[in-house]
Amino acid sequence: MKSHVFGVDVGGTTVKLGLFDINGNVLDKWEIPTRTEDGGKNILPDIAASILEKMAQKNISKEDLAGVGVGVPGPVDGSGVVHKAVNLGWGRFDLKKELGTLLEGIRIEAGNDANVAALGEYWKGGGQGYNNMVAVTLGTGIGGGIIINGEILSGATGAGGEIGHIHVDDDETEECGCGNHGCLEQYGSATGITRLARRALQASDKDSVLRKGELSAKAVFDAVKAGDELAIEIAEKFGDYLGKGLGAVAAVVNPEIFVIGGGVSKAGEALFDYIRPAYEKNVFHGSRNVIFALALLGNDAGIYGAAKMVLD
Amino acid sequence: MKSHVFGVDVGGTTVKLGLFDINGNVLDKWEIPTRTEDGGKNILPDIAASILEKMAQKNISKEDLAGVGVGVPGPVDGSGVVHKAVNLGWGRFDLKKELGTLLEGIRIEAGNDANVAALGEYWKGGGQGYNNMVAVTLGTGIGGGIIINGEILSGATGAGGEIGHIHVDDDETEECGCGNHGCLEQYGSATGITRLARRALQASDKDSVLRKGELSAKAVFDAVKAGDELAIEIAEKFGDYLGKGLGAVAAVVNPEIFVIGGGVSKAGEALFDYIRPAYEKNVFHGSRNVIFALALLGNDAGIYGAAKMVLD
Repeated sequence: MKSHVFGVDVGGTTVKLGLFDINGNVLDKWEIPTRTEDGGKNILPDIAASILEKMAQKNISKEDLAGVGVGVPGPVDGSGVVHKAVNLGWGRFDLKKELGTLLEGIRIEAGNDANVAALGEYWKGGGQGYNNMVAVTLGTGIGGGIIINGEILSGATGAGGEIGHIHVDDDETEECGCGNHGCLEQYGSATGITRLARRALQASDKDSVLRKGELSAKAVFDAVKAGDELAIEIAEKFGDYLGKGLGAVAAVVNPEIFVIGGGVSKAGEALFDYIRPAYEKNVFHGSRNVIFALALLGNDAGIYGAAKMVLD
Repeated sequence: MKSHVFGVDVGGTTVKLGLFDINGNVLDKWEIPTRTEDGGKNILPDIAASILEKMAQKNISKEDLAGVGVGVPGPVDGSGVVHKAVNLGWGRFDLKKELGTLLEGIRIEAGNDANVAALGEYWKGGGQGYNNMVAVTLGTGIGGGIIINGEILSGATGAGGEIGHIHVDDDETEECGCGNHGCLEQYGSATGITRLARRALQASDKDSVLRKGELSAKAVFDAVKAGDELAIEIAEKFGDYLGKGLGAVAAVVNPEIFVIGGGVSKAGEALFDYIRPAYEKNVFHGSRNVIFALALLGNDAGIYGAAKMVLD
């Protein structure tokens, strides 16, 4: 009888680990450093050692364990092969097989971290009860994860749900991190909002609290709450891009719900007031009545989703 | 032992029907008129009668039959409920149940016609062997159908794959059939190409064979083949919109292949030369190496896909 499952979320600085019962209650969570040197060759052995140690400590046998799920910051295909994870120094390799060798007899599942976090929000977070869901993480960049009939949509090469790289502006002169120009991420992420703010301040003579202090997405949305006119214009522009981008996503996968997380989502549900107008204006009518909700699991979405992968 | 399956494609003027063996070889195909009067109440009884007649004629018993699949020109959800089919006069009703009552003891499956046609191309057409595929029908409008892991992506309300209504132009003044402005369909469909041509002829003084005779997508691509400069500019504009739109689709679902069908696709693989540049420029790198292929089944894609729904 399987009673436990581990969820692992590999980041560029730390690896988050969680021990769950099979109903999804978290029993323990902790972190270990991500050793990215030497092509990241220590990362999997470190994870394996930490899991074996925890199992010994909690008196959990391999027979008790449903398995270990791992979220990776890069494309991972449906068979558990990592295609690349730049921040970890990893190239292409079969993670499921390699970690399986280190943890002999234990079932391993692997997926892209944004997709895995989406699965976490679907299982125990803002998307509970919605079998067709899109998770949108508005952080430094924009991450996306798509759940169709309760399962992650990984895509052909693990690049499914890369909604931050939908092209939304033909006139962009600056380059996106991906090398293209005019990606949604350049306007809808925390970095993108800061760029929009910088441009708006340059283009306008209007007084604004944003002219003092450091520019950030948080500063913009704080100023919005205080009624700052220029900040409201910036938020409208942000919402215009994001609404159009999410409208395109909805034309493709027709979800029941968008679950919005990441640092920018700390602005709260007020965010939706800026996204909805452009969304509703541009989306196909069959997807107009979508729900916008906030993500609930924060940085733990990854370990939840990783655990859920094993239980599916 | 099930030996046969029917595929039915309900159109606004005719209903196409096909009898297949369970390996997907078509044994017979025929059409009946679509009687749309009185809210389309005769359509299902007509289909049922035609199927029963064919079974009698071919000496096929209910026990021999795997079932009947039906493609409908409107949203159909995962449980076989039609949400609306304007061209047939149909509102919301449970097609699976109603046709099941008319054909007692026979398994019924139903889906949106564009999605079902995509399944046909996946099974026996241009997408054979590719489990993650997007079918794009460039006809009067733009239809889309998305296959993920070999299955149709229907979406929450049956509006999955409505890629013709991705917003691609902020400056559009004319209304799309859906009521929005700037949908991909307004530039990439046969009607859209004609619009682009009309605008280009008005905006330019250039000589062009398109100034004589009737404007149509076919006329434009015939002129492209003849080296007509203005026609080439129109084709480039068409390809620019379509490449960007399909780039957005790829950022969401990351397919292995796009299978392009519909009247416009009669221009052949030359079409891809116009789509690829904008696609490659704007798509996320993980989806750059996608395959573009032509649809192979023409108007029969619907009956193939409808039959396949039953066999899945």
